[in-house]
Amino acid sequence: MELEFLGTGAGQPSKQRNVTSIALRLLDERNEVWLFDVGEATQHQLLKSNTRSRKVTKIFITHMHGDHIFGLPGFLTSRNFQGSEIIDGGRPTDLTIYGPAALQQFVFSVLRAAQVRLQYRVNFVQVHTGVIFNDKQFSVSAFAMNHGIEDYAYRVVEKDTVGELEVQKLLDLGLQSGPVFGKIKAGQTIKLSDGRVINGQEFVGSDRPGRIVAIVLDTKETPAIIDAAKNADVLVHEATYDGDNSVMAKKHGHSTSVQAAEHAKKAGAKGLILTHISARYLGHMADQLVKQAKSVFPNTEIAHDLEVFDIPAKKSERKDQVNAG
Amino acid sequence: MELEFLGTGAGQPSKQRNVTSIALRLLDERNEVWLFDVGEATQHQLLKSNTRSRKVTKIFITHMHGDHIFGLPGFLTSRNFQGSEIIDGGRPTDLTIYGPAALQQFVFSVLRAAQVRLQYRVNFVQVHTGVIFNDKQFSVSAFAMNHGIEDYAYRVVEKDTVGELEVQKLLDLGLQSGPVFGKIKAGQTIKLSDGRVINGQEFVGSDRPGRIVAIVLDTKETPAIIDAAKNADVLVHEATYDGDNSVMAKKHGHSTSVQAAEHAKKAGAKGLILTHISARYLGHMADQLVKQAKSVFPNTEIAHDLEVFDIPAKKSERKDQVNAG
Ligand SMILES: [Zn+2]
Ligand SMILES: [Zn+2]
Repeated sequence: MELEFLGTGAGQPSKQRNVTSIALRLLDERNEVWLFDVGEATQHQLLKSNTRSRKVTKIFITHMHGDHIFGLPGFLTSRNFQGSEIIDGGRPTDLTIYGPAALQQFVFSVLRAAQVRLQYRVNFVQVHTGVIFNDKQFSVSAFAMNHGIEDYAYRVVEKDTVGELEVQKLLDLGLQSGPVFGKIKAGQTIKLSDGRVINGQEFVGSDRPGRIVAIVLDTKETPAIIDAAKNADVLVHEATYDGDNSVMAKKHGHSTSVQAAEHAKKAGAKGLILTHISARYLGHMADQLVKQAKSVFPNTEIAHDLEVFDIPAKKSERKDQVNAG
Repeated sequence: MELEFLGTGAGQPSKQRNVTSIALRLLDERNEVWLFDVGEATQHQLLKSNTRSRKVTKIFITHMHGDHIFGLPGFLTSRNFQGSEIIDGGRPTDLTIYGPAALQQFVFSVLRAAQVRLQYRVNFVQVHTGVIFNDKQFSVSAFAMNHGIEDYAYRVVEKDTVGELEVQKLLDLGLQSGPVFGKIKAGQTIKLSDGRVINGQEFVGSDRPGRIVAIVLDTKETPAIIDAAKNADVLVHEATYDGDNSVMAKKHGHSTSVQAAEHAKKAGAKGLILTHISARYLGHMADQLVKQAKSVFPNTEIAHDLEVFDIPAKKSERKDQVNAG
């Protein structure tokens, strides 16, 4: 699981930062990439990256401002020509787009105006507060933000992996499948009729807690940020302004780097990545944003275009000791 | 007068060529820039160029395919923040967009979806075959092309500059304003009552023929190309394919570099610049397109992204000798 920042600027592109798009690379987990927002020239940024647009299966849009959506028509159109040779006879795989109510009409009217016929299916899911996607591996929830326009933060939760019973090991010991396997899987210590003692915990693979990634883009302070970011392993948070510009930030519906840090701290997040940086902070001037944020939340980084952050799998956890029945 | 190629690729961006946009820089002539097509990331290309988006006063769109228009919403939105300090109290100057019938609805619906409020006025002119712009300096005509969608070539004609009568020089000689000035301006030789002989040609500034630039983008062969390109100083012509792929070109509504050269020759153009090159022609492979074209029309060049071609003012021409009345 990796986060790749395709664009880290606010409002309009600059020489240093393109407008917003973030790729959540789930290649090991499900051979998929999920995009969060698709600012203009996201497809150009992908040309410089290892991420292939045909791997993108889900796109989450936070809100309808141009710096978050104007790259979507071009991305979808060019993806037409990037089919896999293996799957679907060369057609690109289908795609699901999650976003505000106005998004579907926007995409369809633009593609119609340009007479684009997509070779793959695009499903739209109109986002509301709550769980918007859920399968056995991941869930995604949306939280309404405060930006003067319908706007959502997204919380991606990887489900915990429960340790599997190592059946073959038990069969090799001469045990036969039956109710006793259930007790062993529950971690109990079992005394067999031949006197042998089986410690369940030695025959169950380890559990692995899932990771949590929260993506909080354009918003001023609002309590739902903490809900979205609760115990996140990584909180990606917009930081359009530095801490001295909180009045300006609030006026424009944005956050400062210090507010982002306060949210990370309050939510109990483990790490914070700042993005959506105003073009006023050229080069090393952006260091100031990080410095201020670190004084509140030390584990803070600032994203740069095309930078990739690894989110390593968590350490496995042995089951808690359970007394034998 | 200069042509700057902001994007020279066909269909979708590649690492070497962005999708189409061409800037006709009329800085000396009228302190304006005119854009022809605005593919995605045209505003990004402008960041790497000397051309300022606030100087753009006219945009001509050839057709509604995405690689020619998907940069327009972002360009218009970002231009909001690039006002001149001097003119209009910081607001960017107004803009006129010329294009097919579907263009106005496309632009307005996208800007509405993104809740963009432009700080300047955008006028739309729906293009038809014929003269679409005309003032004392320039005229622009449109010619219907053949690309399976409403599509136009544009012919920009700079008007001839007629030499002015050098009035002060005559007054210094003691002449008085009157009908004789008209004769002198017409280049006649006049005998004054005091016996002096005035050669009109010595008192009239030189005429300067205007320049002609024709921009022929996505189209397969069609007779109107020759009308658009007639006697052009520079013909910009799409060359999606090389000369060996004329069947493919025709099938997709495009031209080969050899067809472009044939059109330049037949139209009596002075120079040819190839653009809209398929991404299949990587690096030096594109040399083949030029080589084939040169065998038909020697004065051919191929455009690269951000390349600028100067179109120098023509030599002045003295009036033809006129007999005295
Ligand atoms: Zn934004
Ligand atoms: Zn094209």
